Amino acid sequence: AMQIIDSPMTGLMQDHPLQVSALLRYAEAAHPGREIVSRQVDGSIFRYDNRGLARRVAQAANMLRSLGIVPGDVVSSLAWNTHRHLELFYAVPGIGAVLHTANPRLSDDHVAYTIDHAGSHVLLIDESFVDLAVRLLPRLGKIETVILLGDRAGDAIGALSYEALLRDRPDIVEWPWLTERSGAFLCYTSGTTGDPKGVLYSHRSIVLHAYAAGLSGALGFSAFDCVMPCQSMYHATAWGLPFAAAINGCKIVLPCDRMDGASLQELIQAEGVTFSGGVPTIWTMYLDHLRRSGQGVGSLERIVIGGSAVPRAMATTFQSHGVEVRQLWGMTETSPVGVIASPTPAIETHGADARDEIVWTRQGRLQFGIELRIVDEEGRALPHDGRSAGALHVRGPWTVERYFRSEASALDDDGWFDTGDIATIDADGFMRITDRSKDVIKSGGEWVSSIDLENAAMACAGVKIAAVIGAFHPKWEERPVLIVEAHAGDRVTEEAIREHLARAVVKWWMPDRIIFDTVPLTATGKIAKRELRERYANCLSSGHRSA
Amino acid sequence: AMQIIDSPMTGLMQDHPLQVSALLRYAEAAHPGREIVSRQVDGSIFRYDNRGLARRVAQAANMLRSLGIVPGDVVSSLAWNTHRHLELFYAVPGIGAVLHTANPRLSDDHVAYTIDHAGSHVLLIDESFVDLAVRLLPRLGKIETVILLGDRAGDAIGALSYEALLRDRPDIVEWPWLTERSGAFLCYTSGTTGDPKGVLYSHRSIVLHAYAAGLSGALGFSAFDCVMPCQSMYHATAWGLPFAAAINGCKIVLPCDRMDGASLQELIQAEGVTFSGGVPTIWTMYLDHLRRSGQGVGSLERIVIGGSAVPRAMATTFQSHGVEVRQLWGMTETSPVGVIASPTPAIETHGADARDEIVWTRQGRLQFGIELRIVDEEGRALPHDGRSAGALHVRGPWTVERYFRSEASALDDDGWFDTGDIATIDADGFMRITDRSKDVIKSGGEWVSSIDLENAAMACAGVKIAAVIGAFHPKWEERPVLIVEAHAGDRVTEEAIREHLARAVVKWWMPDRIIFDTVPLTATGKIAKRELRERYANCLSSGHRSA
Ligand SMILES: Nc1ncnc2c1ncn2[C@@H]1O[C@H](COP(=O)(O)OP(=O)(O)OP(=O)(O)O)[C@@H](O)[C@H]1O
Ligand SMILES: Nc1ncnc2c1ncn2[C@@H]1O[C@H](COP(=O)(O)OP(=O)(O)OP(=O)(O)O)[C@@H](O)[C@H]1O
Ligand SMILES: [Mg+2]
Ligand SMILES: [Mg+2]
Repeated sequence: AMQIIDSPMTGLMQDHPLQVSALLRYAEAAHPGREIVSRQVDGSIFRYDNRGLARRVAQAANMLRSLGIVPGDVVSSLAWNTHRHLELFYAVPGIGAVLHTANPRLSDDHVAYTIDHAGSHVLLIDESFVDLAVRLLPRLGKIETVILLGDRAGDAIGALSYEALLRDRPDIVEWPWLTERSGAFLCYTSGTTGDPKGVLYSHRSIVLHAYAAGLSGALGFSAFDCVMPCQSMYHATAWGLPFAAAINGCKIVLPCDRMDGASLQELIQAEGVTFSGGVPTIWTMYLDHLRRSGQGVGSLERIVIGGSAVPRAMATTFQSHGVEVRQLWGMTETSPVGVIASPTPAIETHGADARDEIVWTRQGRLQFGIELRIVDEEGRALPHDGRSAGALHVRGPWTVERYFRSEASALDDDGWFDTGDIATIDADGFMRITDRSKDVIKSGGEWVSSIDLENAAMACAGVKIAAVIGAFHPKWEERPVLIVEAHAGDRVTEEAIREHLARAVVKWWMPDRIIFDTVPLTATGKIAKRELRERYANCLSSGHRSA
Repeated sequence: AMQIIDSPMTGLMQDHPLQVSALLRYAEAAHPGREIVSRQVDGSIFRYDNRGLARRVAQAANMLRSLGIVPGDVVSSLAWNTHRHLELFYAVPGIGAVLHTANPRLSDDHVAYTIDHAGSHVLLIDESFVDLAVRLLPRLGKIETVILLGDRAGDAIGALSYEALLRDRPDIVEWPWLTERSGAFLCYTSGTTGDPKGVLYSHRSIVLHAYAAGLSGALGFSAFDCVMPCQSMYHATAWGLPFAAAINGCKIVLPCDRMDGASLQELIQAEGVTFSGGVPTIWTMYLDHLRRSGQGVGSLERIVIGGSAVPRAMATTFQSHGVEVRQLWGMTETSPVGVIASPTPAIETHGADARDEIVWTRQGRLQFGIELRIVDEEGRALPHDGRSAGALHVRGPWTVERYFRSEASALDDDGWFDTGDIATIDADGFMRITDRSKDVIKSGGEWVSSIDLENAAMACAGVKIAAVIGAFHPKWEERPVLIVEAHAGDRVTEEAIREHLARAVVKWWMPDRIIFDTVPLTATGKIAKRELRERYANCLSSGHRSA
């Protein structure tokens, strides 16, 4: 068990609590003129700098206090990646309250469930969500105040205007000092495998994560970077990018909900974006835009991609544009940085091909602050040999201890959290996800990696999305079935895919069936495997009629 | 006053204490083959990797435990920058004890005082310090065990051999989890202005400092860096370079006590050193070596220099070699990173000349994790206008709260620590030290910056060291007096210096006297101003006979 002992010789350094407000105070003092540029819901561009941000955050904090928000209160947002949302990122935790960033892409039921579960009294929404609010409010008994993040007040829902509330507020505030374990953000998981679960980040976890995320082997931020977070701000605080950007002096560009290729390209070119990050679907659209428009990537230097496995073709295409792709694996429960794939001298020694193979097909390498281990079904630690696959456990100061409102710890006796993912780790510290434990395919007692198989199929010309599930099999227990969605206009044949796979994977992994169908995606662009299993889990059993 | 409130909504992340041992465990897991190369006391080279280091650290930890060392015990070292010293950096705090890195360059009295004050029972020394130990041991009543860091046992002082003690020890250890406020290192200040004062770093402060120090705007470490710490390991843990190197996957090169230009150059060339750090005197010797040998800097890319003001000529000379100099200001009390001078887009906008001027003449810019303020004599905060000079106060989690064995906090009510330095801060977040408060020269009610005057004089051809003190003056209270030590063989005249200064500083700063003399330096290569004041403080008063 993880016992913590207290040395009789206590260190004599300051008991200075790590604070979310300190991130902003730093940005203001050290990089006052560094810009923040935001697309707004109406498509127009808003710009100010850290000094301006700090002023408006102070106004927002004073406003929230005047509404009666006190430390420990939860406030919910339904908002895109905009400067006003960023203001809430600081104002709400700054005064000791908790910002619950609700995910508007979830089903109405799930949105209502999370806001209610969070216990919010105040809801701040973008104009885009008035209809959603109209639908939800009758079910949200606890919400007392709705604030529209803009100039308008909302008659239909009795919403106040954020801008009107801010106007003439004092633009300075004396931030309280909070113990660093105080809650700061409440983020729910994506609901891919079940109901979304709440993770309550602390001031401490946010700050430690920001330090680690900025390091060269992680995101590698510098004061010359211009960072555009294309991961939604309601997903694990946009992966913490805004905070890491703040302490590294980066410019920030916020794309609102306009994540289509043309809109992103416009911001990249106009603002000199050097760094961006988001889920693979965003980058599929972006690369598609580049291909169709014949344009280049401009100032873009590095992209972090995660949330789902990064198709190898995506990484190589970016490379051909001179952009370095860094895959990230993480989860809401890890704030979210788990591993990030960046090169090391060790993998360079294996030669350029092996190096590329590693960086492009591993989820990433170990980062200081989050420990990984893999265990077999009996809970025994497995070696870091790059082959042994097991349940991935994580541990560290920005990893969840228990879910929000749960009575039970989510950890084992030694403090490890089971991620629900299956992975290998190699001798160079690179980790590879082979599956989610819920998606694992066990054929004749052996594991088939659905992710590897999907990656292989994705590399076949014309394939837009490839999804592999395990279907019940009378003899082998389960066998892989591949569902393929082709690019519009492209003709892909089963034969072509089989030929391609025959070269890419071991023989017994060859799917028993290949089905052409649209592949359902979740709100985060992940393959909705539960849905696919409902459709096709019995497609190999006798009597099943194919869809 | 700094009141810390506890939100009723506690974050639900893991209570995972920051640990020194975790730095090593990370290096071992993530960068097992990354090398550590050490010159040894006999001049030979030793090399292993993080895996090898971890094994020997485990052996050392087991050995220390077998000697009866328990959490809270203090262990002293008298050692150079070697791999064995690095092993102690992990083994001692790893088992919950405190490593006191005694400074052998202090006077015997001060060395004895610090070891006694630390309360150590065990002393680990390099071969070089046998004579020192023989002299000191009679005065060190508490020391029970002396260990020689090598193969030899020491008859004269009954010392055990470190290598013999390690041999056949188990090379694995289960590191205990310690509360993160537990003491880890005890480092004394340099004793420039009085007796050395002890600062007890905690596991928390070491780890947070390591995170911050590695960021791009600070040391900017990457996994491809080869880091050679030329600051002594007994000075604020070699500025924390070994720890920042560990979590960024850097190779480490340790030069032992061979800090002369030729020896450093040998390591830089043989090991591919990309990054180094140390006090200005080291780099004067190194540049001198380059000049005399006509050699280049090889793989060297960046150097951090601090401890005393960096002469502008040093920065420009390095720049002409393609090496970026980053000045660091800090103190033992700040672990030691305070500010570091690295470029930002903001200062780039002022134009290349202004940018160079800023980077070369400021001590550095704000880093996240250590707050700065400057206050006037009444304690009122001064503006960040680059002109207003005041007492420099600092605050943050790796800043001292109180000195070792002191009953009283070293902080004011708001948690600020007065550094004893006088500084300005500009609108871009760059800080400049104008003086130590003890060295301040007040002439007719106005401050003359001794550091600025010294820098100006240093730029005059032939000047090796320039030191400015305030001498008593019947009319102006104090007037600056310049003491100049010329380069051996160079002829410098008072006239030449005066001409040079007339162009560089305001008229009323012109020293009343210029004296040619050797300039005494402290153990850290700082100008021993106390000594100079003893010699020359009355040199302007009637009746003083010049030396
Ligand atoms: N680079 C990646 N490669 C493969 N899978 C990834 C990657 N990054 C993240 N994932 C998957 O995403 C998961 C984390 O996603 P998130 O926290 O958004 O919610 P979710 O797990 O999808 O939803 P829920 O937990 O509610 O079912 C990881 O556990 C992993 O399965
Ligand atoms: N880059 C720099 N430029 C000018 N001065 C510096 C710089 N870096 C450090 N210093 C000086 O060194 C001091 C810190 O040094 P250190 O902690 O080694 O002990 P010390 O202050 O010299 O000794 P003591 O406190 O015992 O008198 C700072 O307070 C500052 O005066
Ligand atoms: Mg999940
Ligand atoms: Mg001092």
